[in-house]
Amino acid sequence: MPRFKLTIEYDGRPFMGWQRQAHGPSVQQCLEEAAAAIFGGTPLVYGCGRTDSGVHALGQVAHVDCPKPLSPFRLSEALNARLRPHPIAILEAEQVADDFHARFDCTGRAYRYVIHNRRAPLTLTAGREWRISKPLDETAMADAAAHLVGRHDFTTFRSVHCQAESPVKTLTRLEVERQGDHVVVEADAPSFLHHQIRSITGCLAMVGDGRWKPRDMKAALDSKDRAALGLNAPPDGLYFVRATYE
Amino acid sequence: MPRFKLTIEYDGRPFMGWQRQAHGPSVQQCLEEAAAAIFGGTPLVYGCGRTDSGVHALGQVAHVDCPKPLSPFRLSEALNARLRPHPIAILEAEQVADDFHARFDCTGRAYRYVIHNRRAPLTLTAGREWRISKPLDETAMADAAAHLVGRHDFTTFRSVHCQAESPVKTLTRLEVERQGDHVVVEADAPSFLHHQIRSITGCLAMVGDGRWKPRDMKAALDSKDRAALGLNAPPDGLYFVRATYE
Repeated sequence: MPRFKLTIEYDGRPFMGWQRQAHGPSVQQCLEEAAAAIFGGTPLVYGCGRTDSGVHALGQVAHVDCPKPLSPFRLSEALNARLRPHPIAILEAEQVADDFHARFDCTGRAYRYVIHNRRAPLTLTAGREWRISKPLDETAMADAAAHLVGRHDFTTFRSVHCQAESPVKTLTRLEVERQGDHVVVEADAPSFLHHQIRSITGCLAMVGDGRWKPRDMKAALDSKDRAALGLNAPPDGLYFVRATYE
Repeated sequence: MPRFKLTIEYDGRPFMGWQRQAHGPSVQQCLEEAAAAIFGGTPLVYGCGRTDSGVHALGQVAHVDCPKPLSPFRLSEALNARLRPHPIAILEAEQVADDFHARFDCTGRAYRYVIHNRRAPLTLTAGREWRISKPLDETAMADAAAHLVGRHDFTTFRSVHCQAESPVKTLTRLEVERQGDHVVVEADAPSFLHHQIRSITGCLAMVGDGRWKPRDMKAALDSKDRAALGLNAPPDGLYFVRATYE
């Protein structure tokens, strides 16, 4: 049965997150219901990464098997038509090998965290950015971020609910850049721990507003202790940007 | 009584527009109610320009008289606190001369119209952009726009409900630029007619998708006939960006 790779954008606000939940709507459920309306049966949609409740995606990747002879374009059109009015859109569909797996074949994941550094409350971007009113020192944040790049035990930045086998992960990129009123954190890694980026961003914000020095980030990492976490950033500003495949 | 100039950002979706309406919520009403909660009485908030239902603002300007001895910062903080949960924010407040008038003293207004030129439905930016799935030729759109710059009778691009005394207006700037999947229209003028930018953008889109040639825009302008209007763009993509004062 032909397998398709889907590139998906969504607004995370109305959802309990990517993964199917008994207690509320999820992105996966909306996609599987849209697929069922086209294919019949109970199609399964496998995602590259699970995003939390309220976390957004610009380029989430998933795969699904399609029992009907549909072109990639027709499949994405049919899914988008049935996804309405949910804020989920198929940006691209492409046929892939029958053994392609969105999660297990993914070799790189990229996230972005957007901070709006201003005093005024958010209006047009409410729920899609984290507003921090105290002026942030992005240079100090970048210095702190540099301590986390590479292979480390990220226990400090790991949710108690994390299901990963090991707390050791390799951050290939962690950059902080100011863009006017915005401070943007970009993170790349083969894979991440649950809450890893929100935990890191929360601590970067503490460095940015002066409560921590850049070296305190190193100490927090080295302590390998969740209690050393400064702050967990809200889901609002987090975006799943990209998944890479060999 | 000290007069304050307010710079205001809002998401236009929940509102009937800027101006007070009997039949629904307006930005002006929310601001006047917030001011009343601080000052008491029935404060009046005068806006620089009336935006339509669903039209947004990044830098709307208004003025209000404040009977209390508040600093500009305290006034903006107090207003923002009372504007919640409405998606309206005071970005800046400054004390101005007692005879300053946000509308009559304004010498220049700037609007932006944002088109998202892609096939997939909008998710994160739904209600804040106009999605056009057919590929747009931004160069042809820019050529068409050039015909409208300057002093003209804009009857073709004027709502039947327009209350302006004359249909003659001077467009000081009308530019079209592609930014990736987005096509952005920027318009500057001392003042605009009701629906002028939405009417112009609708016709620019017809040029962009090939239904009109750039010269058809000139013919539509010269006809001075509302019936020659190609298309009125939806409010979703329109932003009041800036007001200028001497």
